[in-house]
Parts: sequence; structure tokens; C-alpha cells
Amino acid sequence: MNGNAPLPSWNEGAARAAIVEFVEQTVARGVPVEERIAVFDADGTLWCEQPVPVEAVFILRRLAELAKTEPKLQDRQPWKAAYEHDNAWLGQVITEHYAGDDTKAKTLLGGVGAAFAGIGVEDFEARASSFLRSAQHPTLGRGYLETAYAPMVELFGYLEANGFSNHIVSGSGADFMRPISKEVFGIPPERLIGSETVLEYEGGTITRKGQLGFLDDGPQKPIQIWTHVGRRPLLAGGNSNGDLPMLEFAQHQDTPSLRLLVLHDDAEREFAYTSGAEKALAQAGTSGWTVVSMKNDFATVFAAADREDAKAVVHA
Amino acid sequence: MNGNAPLPSWNEGAARAAIVEFVEQTVARGVPVEERIAVFDADGTLWCEQPVPVEAVFILRRLAELAKTEPKLQDRQPWKAAYEHDNAWLGQVITEHYAGDDTKAKTLLGGVGAAFAGIGVEDFEARASSFLRSAQHPTLGRGYLETAYAPMVELFGYLEANGFSNHIVSGSGADFMRPISKEVFGIPPERLIGSETVLEYEGGTITRKGQLGFLDDGPQKPIQIWTHVGRRPLLAGGNSNGDLPMLEFAQHQDTPSLRLLVLHDDAEREFAYTSGAEKALAQAGTSGWTVVSMKNDFATVFAAADREDAKAVVHA
Repeated sequence: MNGNAPLPSWNEGAARAAIVEFVEQTVARGVPVEERIAVFDADGTLWCEQPVPVEAVFILRRLAELAKTEPKLQDRQPWKAAYEHDNAWLGQVITEHYAGDDTKAKTLLGGVGAAFAGIGVEDFEARASSFLRSAQHPTLGRGYLETAYAPMVELFGYLEANGFSNHIVSGSGADFMRPISKEVFGIPPERLIGSETVLEYEGGTITRKGQLGFLDDGPQKPIQIWTHVGRRPLLAGGNSNGDLPMLEFAQHQDTPSLRLLVLHDDAEREFAYTSGAEKALAQAGTSGWTVVSMKNDFATVFAAADREDAKAVVHA
Repeated sequence: MNGNAPLPSWNEGAARAAIVEFVEQTVARGVPVEERIAVFDADGTLWCEQPVPVEAVFILRRLAELAKTEPKLQDRQPWKAAYEHDNAWLGQVITEHYAGDDTKAKTLLGGVGAAFAGIGVEDFEARASSFLRSAQHPTLGRGYLETAYAPMVELFGYLEANGFSNHIVSGSGADFMRPISKEVFGIPPERLIGSETVLEYEGGTITRKGQLGFLDDGPQKPIQIWTHVGRRPLLAGGNSNGDLPMLEFAQHQDTPSLRLLVLHDDAEREFAYTSGAEKALAQAGTSGWTVVSMKNDFATVFAAADREDAKAVVHA
């Protein structure tokens, strides 16, 4: 960390300068506080999505569990891959998805939808909370909550101190992150937007059905922002092609706007990859969006690995 | 108005006492502020829905306008009824809907969906705003914004002063009320939930498509509350059978909860009807929910009819 207020865990550079300039201009121009809406993708923008996005790990564990109790599922994808820990098959899903072939993705999503079918939404949150507070990231030597990027958490605090409302607009489900979003990111549950599972209401209880309602990715992101917030954001942050429409949507004629694209170029401290971000990176180049290099712009990547210490840093 | 703080435009009685007791208990028991979620239906709960709900008037005007420019629509429902001001046909839609026959409702909803197809969401909001600020209620001698119930607006202020967050969960579209909800009800756009039109995103712009996504009524209301807010409410207010699941959902094991059902029994100052509210009233009786009699519990029904005066009362 350098000692520079207001963003000590960011290095001096174009990204930090663009953020500070945007925030100062927004305040100086007197943009009404209610219009200061900031939206951020989650996986790969706020916390690690490698080698497998966090909710996918949670769902795969559940699928493996289901295959264990119901052996006929052991020969059927995606239960088979989950049960056999077949990361190659899962990697193919993502690679083929980004290449435009969603055959395997549909198979996977079918299983994903069914994974928690019949479970109440409050029960689901309790399971997500328990997983997120106990499971360990496979290579980083820390729990999943500690894979949150400290500079982004710090950015949230800086934005909030300047009248912004931060929202998460994730390709994962909102209910998955809600039990921990306030604690880890300072963002309350009503500011989480995500992919939706079909829900059913009966007799005071809401239950998850076995189908995905929609995937909150690509053009769905600006649509869901509008549906939930009713305003265009001034600031959008993402890291992949699926965030491109959301970043494009964060524009106003008369007020400053900022588009942040997190670039994973730090193999030493996190991961280095641009797969699935090629179009977004190209657009950032032509549109003058701000690319955030994890290697060069982040003075710190993660908060202290110990949960109690991490909390102290985050909420200091 | 009586002079009793905190709700001077409510008469002394069981409803006012139940509200004050609920709020005082919530505060006394130290229920965390973030759990103090209150949700309210709009039409017939916060403002007049007779003789025709406000958004329906707006849409019918648009359908009539379309029929005028495209004469072949003049023989087709629902454009025909809109063009001929055939309130009898429209009344039938509602009567048959509540009786369980949605044939005409489907015809109407087809036209409703198409009414603003191809129009951008920001343009739609500007049209809704302009309509709401200029059109007059057909019988009450006041603009639609002045058909807001003063005791409910006052209740919102009281709840907010006690740490509650108020949300509107309407069968109408959120985008219809968003341009005026802060001014009239003190509720910002991100706390409006409603029926959804299918939206399309392209090149920085969100456009309304010609289909209804879903109607935010009945079991959809608790589902949408969960999706947007991520919590069970402590307080729910409604006035019809379509609000029943939402009221039922507002319950917690360990904290106080309150269910308000507005009863339209004031033919002199507003309207008197229970059509479409029979099941809700029956459930209120058996479950001990609080029925709010407009005749007996509202000291005032509407704020001053002049817009400027009304605002002064509302935000005093």
C-alpha cells in the first residue's frame, strides 16, 4: 500500500487518477446524490473467479452430493463431472460458451437449476452462507470471502463516502451472495442483482424450482439494472465480455461517467487470463474506458487472510 | 384531522393503535434497522383505483391515440373500447377477472403490452410523468397525484422516522410510478416493484417490447419482494385479493409484524366497494389482520387539491 488518501491500496497511475477525477467531478458538479449509482459485476471483478467461479463450486458440491445419494446420476452430466471432479469437462463448458457454443452450457445449467429444486429461499441462503464462511479456495490458501479484492472494497467505501450507492450485478444468483455482501463488500441485500431461478410461492414460503429464469449476463445486465434501480448508472465496473453492455449503458449526456474493466494480468498474486474478455478489452481501447491492471494498479490484491483481520481492514 | 401525534390524519381507533403499537414494539425490541422493511400495494392502497386504475387510464389514452392514427384498430379490442370510451367493456374485464375468467383480460393485456412497444424506457417515463402531472381524475375534481391518500403518505413518514424502508409493490408497472413516487410518496425509484414488460437492450438503449413479462399480482408479489429486497417484510399493506399472498408473507417468528388491509367504505369522500377484496377481507377476519376503514380511520382522505398545497402538507 502507498500512503495516498483516498485509495491507499491502489498504486498511483491512470486507473487511480481516473477514479479520483470522476468522483471529484461528480461531487464538484453537484450531480444529485440519488443519481450517483455505481454497478459492479462480481465474479472476476470483486473476487476471484478462477479456477472456477465461487457459486459454481457451491453448486458442483451439491451435484456431487446428489450423485452420491442417487447413483444413477453418476453417469449423467453435469452430475458425472461434479461427482468425478472432472474439471476438464467444466473448463470445456466455459471455453465453448465464450466461443459461442452453448450445448454443454445448457446441460450444465439444467443441472444447476435442479441442484436446489424444492429448497426454500431462506434455507438456500443459510446453505450459501455456511459454504462461503467455511470453504477454502483451492490454490490461494484462503477462504472464499478472503478472495475479495481489497482495492475494490476500498473503492466502495470511497464511493459511498461521496454519496454513491453501490450495486452488485452478478451472473451468479443474488441469493448466493446476499448473506455475505454487507459484511464483505458493504452492500446490503437489496442492492444485489443476479441470475434468477424460477421461484414458487405457497403458504408463506418461497421455494426454488428446478429451472433457471434467466442468466444475468450480457444485455440482461443493463435490463436488470433498469428494472431494479430505475436509473442509468454513472459508474460500471466489470471484467468480461458479459459486462460489456452494462459498461456501455453507464453513460449520461450531461454528467461524468466512468467505466472500469479489471484486467487479470497478475499470475503471481492472482491469475492471468484474458479469455472471455477479448471484446470488452477491445472496446475499452476504442472507447477510452479505464482498464484496471491488477498487476500495476493494485498495491494490495487481498486483505489479510485471517477473517477477523480482514474484517478489521475492510471496515476500518 | 385530530391533533394526535404521530399520525394526525388518522382517527383514534383500532387501526391507528395497531400501527403505533407495532412501530413502538419494533423499535423497543431493537429489531435491526435493515430488517424494518415495509411493502405496500399501490392502486387502491396508496391512491384511487376507481373508476379505473391510473395506469389503465394512461394506457387507454394511448390505445385510443393509436386507433385514431390506424383506423383498422378501431374494430379490434381493446383499441375499440379505448377509442369509443366503452367503460362497460373495461368494467367487464375486471369483473370477469375477479370471477376467475381471464379471456377478456388476456385480450386487454395483449393491447396493453403493445401500447408502448418500441418506446425507450426513459421516453416512457417522461410520458408517464407528463400524464400524471396533467390529467384529472374523472370524478374527484383533482389531478391523479392528488388522489394519493394523505394518511398513507403520513404513515410512510412515520415509518421512515422509525428506521423503516418503504417499498411499493404494484400490479402496475414500476416505470409508470417512478417519475412521481419520490415526490408524492417519499419513495425513491429503486424501491418500486411492479409488473414487467419485456425489455430489449441494444447500443446503450433499453426499449419496451410488445409483451408483458409478468403481472405482479398474487403470488408474484412475495416472489418479487424476495427477488428485489432479499428479505421478508415486517409490514405489508394492501386492499385486494391480489395482495393476500404478500400480506401472508409479511411474518416473522421472533419479531412483530403488521398486515394492513384498506377497506373502501367511504362512498362520500372516495368510493365504496369490496369487489375483488372478498377473500382478503375474510382472511383478515380469521387471521387478525388490521382492517383500515377509510370512512372511520382516515380523518382526512386526500391532501389539499392544489398541487403546491398538497406538497406542503405531504413534506411538512
